[in-house]
Amino acid sequence: MHKLNQTSWLLLCFMAALVQDRSFADDGLWLFNNPPAKQLQDKYHFAPTTAWLEHIQKSSVRVGRGGSGSFVSPDGLVLTNHHIGSDSLQNLSDATHNYLVDGFYARTSSEEKKCPGLELNVLQSIQDVTDRVNAAVQPSMNAGQAFLARNRVIADIERESQNTTGLHSEVVKLYGGGTYQLYRYKRYTDVRLAFAPEKRIGFFGGDPDNFEYPRFNLDICLFRAYENGQPAQVENYLKVNPQGPSEHDLVFVSGHPGRTNRQLTVSALTDLRDRVLPFQLQTLYRREVLLAAFGAHSLENQRRIDSDLFGIRNSRKRGDGQLASLLSSEFFAARIEDEKAFRAELENQPTLRPVLEAYNRIDQAETEMMKILVSGFLLEGDWRRRGLGFDSRLFRIARTLIRAAVERPKPNGERLAEYRDSNSAPLELQLFSPAPIYDDVEELELSDSLTDLAARLGPEDSLVKQILAGKSPGERARELVSGTKLKDVEVRHQIYEGGAAALEGSSDPMIALATLVDPAARRFRRVFDESSETEQEAYAQIARARFALKGNEIYPDGTGTLRLSFGEVAGYEEDGKTVPAFTTFAGLYQRANDHQNREPFDLPPRWIDRHDKLNLGTRFNFVTTADVVGGNSGSPVVNEAGELVGLIFDGNIQSLAGDFAYSDEQSRSVAVDVAAIIEALEKMYDAKPLVDELVAGKPVSR
Amino acid sequence: MHKLNQTSWLLLCFMAALVQDRSFADDGLWLFNNPPAKQLQDKYHFAPTTAWLEHIQKSSVRVGRGGSGSFVSPDGLVLTNHHIGSDSLQNLSDATHNYLVDGFYARTSSEEKKCPGLELNVLQSIQDVTDRVNAAVQPSMNAGQAFLARNRVIADIERESQNTTGLHSEVVKLYGGGTYQLYRYKRYTDVRLAFAPEKRIGFFGGDPDNFEYPRFNLDICLFRAYENGQPAQVENYLKVNPQGPSEHDLVFVSGHPGRTNRQLTVSALTDLRDRVLPFQLQTLYRREVLLAAFGAHSLENQRRIDSDLFGIRNSRKRGDGQLASLLSSEFFAARIEDEKAFRAELENQPTLRPVLEAYNRIDQAETEMMKILVSGFLLEGDWRRRGLGFDSRLFRIARTLIRAAVERPKPNGERLAEYRDSNSAPLELQLFSPAPIYDDVEELELSDSLTDLAARLGPEDSLVKQILAGKSPGERARELVSGTKLKDVEVRHQIYEGGAAALEGSSDPMIALATLVDPAARRFRRVFDESSETEQEAYAQIARARFALKGNEIYPDGTGTLRLSFGEVAGYEEDGKTVPAFTTFAGLYQRANDHQNREPFDLPPRWIDRHDKLNLGTRFNFVTTADVVGGNSGSPVVNEAGELVGLIFDGNIQSLAGDFAYSDEQSRSVAVDVAAIIEALEKMYDAKPLVDELVAGKPVSR
Repeated sequence: MHKLNQTSWLLLCFMAALVQDRSFADDGLWLFNNPPAKQLQDKYHFAPTTAWLEHIQKSSVRVGRGGSGSFVSPDGLVLTNHHIGSDSLQNLSDATHNYLVDGFYARTSSEEKKCPGLELNVLQSIQDVTDRVNAAVQPSMNAGQAFLARNRVIADIERESQNTTGLHSEVVKLYGGGTYQLYRYKRYTDVRLAFAPEKRIGFFGGDPDNFEYPRFNLDICLFRAYENGQPAQVENYLKVNPQGPSEHDLVFVSGHPGRTNRQLTVSALTDLRDRVLPFQLQTLYRREVLLAAFGAHSLENQRRIDSDLFGIRNSRKRGDGQLASLLSSEFFAARIEDEKAFRAELENQPTLRPVLEAYNRIDQAETEMMKILVSGFLLEGDWRRRGLGFDSRLFRIARTLIRAAVERPKPNGERLAEYRDSNSAPLELQLFSPAPIYDDVEELELSDSLTDLAARLGPEDSLVKQILAGKSPGERARELVSGTKLKDVEVRHQIYEGGAAALEGSSDPMIALATLVDPAARRFRRVFDESSETEQEAYAQIARARFALKGNEIYPDGTGTLRLSFGEVAGYEEDGKTVPAFTTFAGLYQRANDHQNREPFDLPPRWIDRHDKLNLGTRFNFVTTADVVGGNSGSPVVNEAGELVGLIFDGNIQSLAGDFAYSDEQSRSVAVDVAAIIEALEKMYDAKPLVDELVAGKPVSR
Repeated sequence: MHKLNQTSWLLLCFMAALVQDRSFADDGLWLFNNPPAKQLQDKYHFAPTTAWLEHIQKSSVRVGRGGSGSFVSPDGLVLTNHHIGSDSLQNLSDATHNYLVDGFYARTSSEEKKCPGLELNVLQSIQDVTDRVNAAVQPSMNAGQAFLARNRVIADIERESQNTTGLHSEVVKLYGGGTYQLYRYKRYTDVRLAFAPEKRIGFFGGDPDNFEYPRFNLDICLFRAYENGQPAQVENYLKVNPQGPSEHDLVFVSGHPGRTNRQLTVSALTDLRDRVLPFQLQTLYRREVLLAAFGAHSLENQRRIDSDLFGIRNSRKRGDGQLASLLSSEFFAARIEDEKAFRAELENQPTLRPVLEAYNRIDQAETEMMKILVSGFLLEGDWRRRGLGFDSRLFRIARTLIRAAVERPKPNGERLAEYRDSNSAPLELQLFSPAPIYDDVEELELSDSLTDLAARLGPEDSLVKQILAGKSPGERARELVSGTKLKDVEVRHQIYEGGAAALEGSSDPMIALATLVDPAARRFRRVFDESSETEQEAYAQIARARFALKGNEIYPDGTGTLRLSFGEVAGYEEDGKTVPAFTTFAGLYQRANDHQNREPFDLPPRWIDRHDKLNLGTRFNFVTTADVVGGNSGSPVVNEAGELVGLIFDGNIQSLAGDFAYSDEQSRSVAVDVAAIIEALEKMYDAKPLVDELVAGKPVSR
């Protein structure tokens, strides 16, 4: 599934935003303020207008931190994937209601359920701030000083923007620092669940079918944005075309692709292949085994870890696929050849020759990061500060609290990025989320991650000894989880607001652990941040040189911000056979039957009982050549008229190389057909009011 | 489950056979020629006679290479566990018959199915050969020469014995070389399947319940030994007591515990905890994920990997439990204290002071082995020569063939152990086994293990480059598996018999790969063998000193050979609650019900349909304090009268520390009650003829 999750964290630490110069294929994660006009004209004879672009942009929604979606009614209805909604579905569930497994449908808006910790963001405007950011850096500054100076001015810009417009503001670095742009978002924090199907149809085929095609998934979820306790009234939303797309239609995908790495140097790719991915996969393997074994104990256990386990399996399957593509000799040989040729070009241009130095700086930064790879990720962790040695929500809460107490009194620009004023709202939404925390799951994950920590750093390591405090990992995890008071949201509030003074009086064992680990963790963080900064500068220099040499239309590597992709609805060839573009409901029943309706190919009872009601010829899923990567899950697929015709939920196995290179030969994005959504809502779920709202724009009942 | 499998391989490479001097508890893996007479007399007022011992010994059966069992009728019927029979059940199955899942029952002996590659061994006699072995070693020899000299004389003894008696002969090193004993076995290679229940009742509760108690498993399988095409007539077999045991009964377990490590030095335990187990677990995690994901694709996929996946999960759960016990601070602190105290005693005895040197030799040998831990296990692998970088049956066949061609022309005593004359029969049974080999499973496992190999040694490593031959691991695995001819048993025969000449003419890619890897693999093998030999000598020296100081009854660490354990049928306390000694059929239905009959707590249809026929009060499983470890699976539990009352199939989670230390406070062995076996055979399976044969000793129908 194309959800941005654990797999992405490492990449985000290591990667820069980069340029791309191929234009022969339907590739590209294009900026809304720099759309692929030439490509669209040349290949498809289509010219998007400014109004068309603005409409799509403002209808597109960032869902939480790793997903995409779109407004699909004037009353704030948001369409995204079931697997993007899964965390919320799990958080709303308890031992007697399992909405993730059984689905949910609010017949009226009063039945819609508020989702803890979920936010939506809608991009309102883009403004270039490159000059102001660059002006803050003096030529005399070293890398560390430049990093700080840039952070300071970015924090200023974000805060000023937030204060003057009331919009959530983020400065986005594109082309590795080639440009800086201020993105302003309208933020919705009252988000309620309107509809979700059963997991078994949302994720039909489970892990075996994940990242495969043909597919048969009703991977949809409907939320509604609220303002002032009422459904939000939105001006821009996508009209639904109930027919769905036709084969060879030109379609567009508007969503939030995560970081891509299409311009990594060979040395950085080598580190990724030989060090980063294998390390990351080891962690995923052990967590998958752990959670699967825990879930097998009982249905209630399964419910508690369902969403986490899905995320881990998804990351593992993606990681395995990515590693396989990096290990393919053709891929690597081509990259070595490309780099050699490009460096030769630089060598031949006296003005560009100094750019070769950038490759050495990247090598040095890589060397620094690889030195601390294991310790750094165990103690400090990923971009969400998820230290892999402390895989516990309660620990993350403790770390956020102790760091907030130190960071918030600092000048805004000198703080760690996640504590800047512009990020305080999302940070607090997470920190104070009342989503349930299960002691048994916390103990399980913390105990396992402490075991891994002890094994990797050695139980005789002095910090490990202090962390374990003379106990085994299991005993220590039990003591920490049962002893901490941080399950109580009120306690989090008190400490957060009380700051350093409140911490001084705390005897909370999780707070004490986070405090113990923090000096070492911050040292690793600084190495990551500075090396990453050095790399980005170097990549930006290479990107500018490439631009100077090639001079054609380019798009920056994915940055988790809104992008436009385009392509054709089209099947492909695989092992000498044609994989057709569309599947149908009839194919779903066939596949369930082929597997004797056995998990994960088992249909929900409703889908068996109502089989005869359904038009079995309805198109269910389809594939397009549009370039999508992790983070695109939930993205709307729109046609030339700007109508919604599909909903991205995955890519095929060939698309997994897309983090490093795009090819439209076999790589495909996978979507739910709007025709199937309408048919299922009406015939399976008796959700005529939702159909009316989607198709006819009828107002929601109050 | 107490099957000896992957978890054991590492230990076997590292460990010595050692002594144990505690006598306060029901511990001990006792030798049949040195039974715990004093303990039995003091605690239980029971004195086994020589005839009693001989009868139990000759009724006990070693099943395959890692399991136990017993003769239970004069017509050669053998009782063991379903999970010990699982490889055979899988090998006998195909896409239309799944005996592992659905069970099997031969109503007459003519329906019994011959199991490819399965052998039974029954210990006939034990003879001390210590003097002859020791006489072969001269004081002037260094470690390598002594190793070779000992191997030579052992090979001579085994071959002579085999030639004169016709019995399979093995010299067993006990107490780390304190004594050498010649074990002679009657070997049965025509072994047929008579009965197995459905996997869902044999392994009810699956991975979640594995190594737990209370339990509800009919973990039984019945084979029959054949001679000359007829059921073997055996003089010694266990009479069945259909009542089963009573609480607090004294019972005995006669089986083949694998290597235990109860006398490891603190430094060796530290290596095990910090290096060996974590590395091993990483491999198990990735294989478990790989096979589970493959199996989820279809029922046929599941069938193909079912037995392997069980073995991996079993090893993983055991490894996790063992690591947790090693990480427990109390356990380790106690071991440090023990060692300190013992060393102080040595220090105080001038004659024993030189023994302290043995600790240094163990440290040095450990250091040597840890240096090559990863490369060694990837390229050379475990004691079964299962190189972890080449996890493929076809590769193992290729390696056996190329090594046989080099080893067999050597003098018997100079060969690698597995190629000695005395081992040629079991080696050939495996090598020429017609058990099915599935291309897809081979590709999957080889591709994954080559990926791991490349990641750990680095794709730029020159040997790795040669191994991959410019392909990705996936491409290379496909090419090797589709290119080799070794699936054909006839081809294996030709090469094995043709030797070096046949190999020279071979263009088989798997043969070429094994040949490429062999020089490096053999270098690692030599380090393992020599370091292991050094350690064993040092442990033997420590053991002799311990014996001199303590002087009480001792037993050697497990060596995979026949041992007698004893104990009491007794429940235990856990988390303040009493866990009763027995479970019943009623408890089985309750547990299935508690889990909504959901996998792995789902009952076979037969067990639902015939619920009312069963006496629900029948005792199903029970626990005893008898000391059992991996390898004991399938061991008979007998009472003072020498009657069969139960069948060992597992230990509880507390028993997992048993590889390093025994405690009878909570540690329990878990058995199927004979009463349940009789009741189930009769009421569930209409297997009255089997019941008659078991209970009344009625002859089998021909």
